[in-house]
Amino acid sequence: MDIYGDLNSGNCLKVKWLCDYLARPYRWIAVDTMNGGSRTPAFLAINPVGQVPVVVLDDGRALAQSNAIIRYLGRDSDLVPGDAYEAAKMDEWLFWEQYSHEPYIAVCRYQMVYLGRPVSSLDPDKVTRGHAALDRMERQLAITTYLVGDAPTLADVALLACTRVASEGGFDLTACPAIRRWIVDAERALGVA
Amino acid sequence: MDIYGDLNSGNCLKVKWLCDYLARPYRWIAVDTMNGGSRTPAFLAINPVGQVPVVVLDDGRALAQSNAIIRYLGRDSDLVPGDAYEAAKMDEWLFWEQYSHEPYIAVCRYQMVYLGRPVSSLDPDKVTRGHAALDRMERQLAITTYLVGDAPTLADVALLACTRVASEGGFDLTACPAIRRWIVDAERALGVA
Repeated sequence: MDIYGDLNSGNCLKVKWLCDYLARPYRWIAVDTMNGGSRTPAFLAINPVGQVPVVVLDDGRALAQSNAIIRYLGRDSDLVPGDAYEAAKMDEWLFWEQYSHEPYIAVCRYQMVYLGRPVSSLDPDKVTRGHAALDRMERQLAITTYLVGDAPTLADVALLACTRVASEGGFDLTACPAIRRWIVDAERALGVA
Repeated sequence: MDIYGDLNSGNCLKVKWLCDYLARPYRWIAVDTMNGGSRTPAFLAINPVGQVPVVVLDDGRALAQSNAIIRYLGRDSDLVPGDAYEAAKMDEWLFWEQYSHEPYIAVCRYQMVYLGRPVSSLDPDKVTRGHAALDRMERQLAITTYLVGDAPTLADVALLACTRVASEGGFDLTACPAIRRWIVDAERALGVA
């Protein structure tokens, strides 16, 4: 299996981490998204949306969208709860991550780290919504060890990727002790360095 | 099962349509989101995020995020492909819908229909990204009858909800014959009036 990704992207790290956790072999194909690598004709033939990550399975079929990819690759693993309702709660976090977390926290980090913009230039609405996302995680992780209970799931894989580097986007985690505790636990459980 | 929803919201219609399609009984509890109905203490106790739709199962457990809900309620139905890769492609569309379609097309419609703003007031970036989303759907639906092939899936349930009223958000579907053909086919297949 080929994984087309950029190690600077949390969405790409999700896929790499999961494959490493599952000991699933892959070939990592670095795409330099900052310099148009995801907009070349060759790449657009693989993913017309022009986004990483995308995986190409051994039979040549492609799959995009980070959370759809980890949902597929991890479907028979211990990172998906056997109980249907708990699996649905995992999906609830996965969809929430893409709608209410990534567009704020990852985008602010992108603007600061890769575009070199100061924290003062960030869109105040994005900052407010990013803090709301962290607040929701903090309240959950004050109650449960992981997002869906006492064991890690794909929801932790997905949220860990953006959250552990939130401070690089101007989001201070000092006031979020449960999130900081969870980052340590999730990194250890998932084998993330 | 109780469904808390607002019939003006495409995200809520997904859940209603699926339950009607599956002939699954439910009680519809109207939430007036335009007048703070999703921000009351009683509602926030059900969904701390303050969003509709949310379902409360017969055992009292709640589930939010429209696509996680339809993924759960439809999990054993003919709207989820039996093949794991095809199911993953369905998930790819579901995550894409929440990241690259709903935030532009549904939000523009919301601003025009419910906030009464003129089309000229829309954020040009949202308009551009909305057109890109429709362009992607048009290219797929020129090839396949439904988004994931020859049979409808949950991806069609999700995308139909926002796309069929795209014109109310200023997105003209005249130049999208494949989408217009698909809307008719999907409405018929899913029994949507």
